[in-house]
Amino acid sequence: MSVLVVGSIAFDSVETPFGRAENVLGGSATFFAAAASHFAPVQVVGVVGKDFPMEQLAPLAARGVDLAGIEHADGESFRWRGRYRHDLNAAETLETRLGVFSHFRPKIPPQFRSAPFVFLGNIDPRLQLDVLQQVEKPRFVACDTMNFWIESRRDDLLALLPHVDALTVNDSEARQLTEEVNLVRAARWIMARGPRHVVIKKGEHGAFMFTPENIFFAPAYPLEEVFDPTGAGDSFAGGFIGYLARSGDLSDENMKRAVVCGSAMGSFAVESFSIGRVLEIGMRDIWERVDAFHRLVGFEREMIG
Amino acid sequence: MSVLVVGSIAFDSVETPFGRAENVLGGSATFFAAAASHFAPVQVVGVVGKDFPMEQLAPLAARGVDLAGIEHADGESFRWRGRYRHDLNAAETLETRLGVFSHFRPKIPPQFRSAPFVFLGNIDPRLQLDVLQQVEKPRFVACDTMNFWIESRRDDLLALLPHVDALTVNDSEARQLTEEVNLVRAARWIMARGPRHVVIKKGEHGAFMFTPENIFFAPAYPLEEVFDPTGAGDSFAGGFIGYLARSGDLSDENMKRAVVCGSAMGSFAVESFSIGRVLEIGMRDIWERVDAFHRLVGFEREMIG
Repeated sequence: MSVLVVGSIAFDSVETPFGRAENVLGGSATFFAAAASHFAPVQVVGVVGKDFPMEQLAPLAARGVDLAGIEHADGESFRWRGRYRHDLNAAETLETRLGVFSHFRPKIPPQFRSAPFVFLGNIDPRLQLDVLQQVEKPRFVACDTMNFWIESRRDDLLALLPHVDALTVNDSEARQLTEEVNLVRAARWIMARGPRHVVIKKGEHGAFMFTPENIFFAPAYPLEEVFDPTGAGDSFAGGFIGYLARSGDLSDENMKRAVVCGSAMGSFAVESFSIGRVLEIGMRDIWERVDAFHRLVGFEREMIG
Repeated sequence: MSVLVVGSIAFDSVETPFGRAENVLGGSATFFAAAASHFAPVQVVGVVGKDFPMEQLAPLAARGVDLAGIEHADGESFRWRGRYRHDLNAAETLETRLGVFSHFRPKIPPQFRSAPFVFLGNIDPRLQLDVLQQVEKPRFVACDTMNFWIESRRDDLLALLPHVDALTVNDSEARQLTEEVNLVRAARWIMARGPRHVVIKKGEHGAFMFTPENIFFAPAYPLEEVFDPTGAGDSFAGGFIGYLARSGDLSDENMKRAVVCGSAMGSFAVESFSIGRVLEIGMRDIWERVDAFHRLVGFEREMIG
C-alpha cells in the first residue's frame, strides 16, 4: 500500500561537533521518503526552485519513490542553515530562506489521491487541511507540526486535528500545544481533540506512542557516534508509517512495531549527514537494528517474584 | 541475602510545583533502605545528630531494616533544602547543612561485615573505600557518587572504581567523570576502570545499564503526577540491589530484571514527598508496576518482515 507525503525539499547546511556539510539534500519530505521507501511505495508532493538539480533526487527515484508531485517553481529552493553543539537534541537555526516554499500550495496529482497512507509533513496547517481535501478517504493520516505553527496558526491546527489519526510532535511542541508540562496529560489533551494516536518524540531520549488504551515507549538507539540529528524525526515518521503501509495492520500491537521501525530509521538517519545512511542500508540492516531494540529493552518477568 | 547500605540520613525541605514539605525524612541511605526492604533484609550505617527523633525511623525498623549501624553524634543532623521548578529533572539546592555528616566516619558493626551485597551511597570516596576495607568479601558492591566528589576527589574516586562491581551515576555525572559527551563511550570509559556494570540514570528519561557485552534500557514510568523527584535515584538503587540480593543471581539477564525493579521503585518514590509512598506499597504493587513496564516497552518482532 502506498504512502503519500507532503512536505519540504530543501538544501541543508549543517555544522555539528563532528563536521560540516554545505547544501546537502534535506527537508521533511526527503527524509520521510528515504526512510519509508524501504517499506512501501512512496509518492512525494513538494516544491523546488529553478536552482534545484533534479539528479539530486535520483537515488530516491531509484528506490521507487514517485516524484511526479514535485513542482518546479520560479525562484530559489528552500535553504536551511543550522548548528548543533554538544547537546545534539537542540538545533540552532542560523538561517532560513523559504524561497519557493513560502508560496507552496500543494497540488496532489490525480494518481496520488487514492493513497491509503498519508503523511502531512511540517507545513502550514491550512495547507495540511487542504491536502486532506484533495485526497480520497485515506486509511491513515499522520501529521507533524512545529512551534512556529503552534504559535501562529493555533486555531487552524486545532481544526485539523479531528481529521488526523496520528499526531507526531516532539516533547516541547506537545507541551507548547497543550500547555501541559506532563507528557501523559499532554497526550490525553491531544487525543481528546481528534487523533487516536499521539507520538511524542524526545530525540535522544526516545519516543512515546499514546493511544486511549496503551502507552508504548521506544528508546533512541544508543549509538556511539551521533553524527547529525537533522531529519531524525522525519525518518522516524517514514519508518513508522512505511511499516504500517507495508503490513496494512493498524492494531495497537502492530503500531508498537511501527514505532520501533520508526526508531530504527531515526537511528540510521543520525549516522550521516543528509539521507546518505538511510539510503545506503538494506532490509537486513533494518531488521538487525529492530532486533537490537528488542534486546535493548526486553526482559523476562518469570524470575521476578 | 542481606544488603548493607552506607549513606546519609537527612531532613529534607522540598518545594515542588505541587506543594512543599518541611523537615521530612530524606537521605540516600533512607530512600535506599525503604526501597530495598521490599526485597531483602537491609542493614543501615549512617549518622544522625542529637536532634534526630529516632521514632522517625520506626517505619523502616517495622519493615525489618536493621538500624544498629546508625551512630548518634553530637551536633545537628544533615539538612537539605531544595526546589524543583517545572523541569523536575533538575533540583536547585537552596541550602545544605552537613552538620554531623561532615565528620561522618562509617563504622561497620561486626554483625554487618559479612553482608553479601553492599551499596556505597553518595559520600566521600575515601570513606567509601574505607567501608570496603571493613567488610568481608561481598559478592556485589555498587557505588553512587556526585559532581562534588568527581570535582574534589577525582583521584580517590578512580582508586575506588576497581573495587566496585557497579557504578550508578546520572548522565551529567557520567559525562563529567569521563569527559565523554556520548553515554556509550562514557560507560566504556568507566568499565575500563573497574566496574563490570555501569548504570546511568537519566531521571524522567530512564536508565541505561551497560555491561561489556550488553546494553539494557528501562524508561522512567510515565506517571501523570510526578510529585517530588527527591530520592528517585537512591530508591532505584534500592530496588536494583534489593532484587539482586533477593534472587542471588548476577547473570546479565537477571541484572536486566533488577534494573526494572529499580525503575519501579524510583517511580513509586516520586509519587510522594519523602519515603511515604515507597513504604506504603506492597509486593503486589511492585509486580504490577513491573508488568506495566513490560507492556510499556514490549513488542513482538514476528510480524515484522
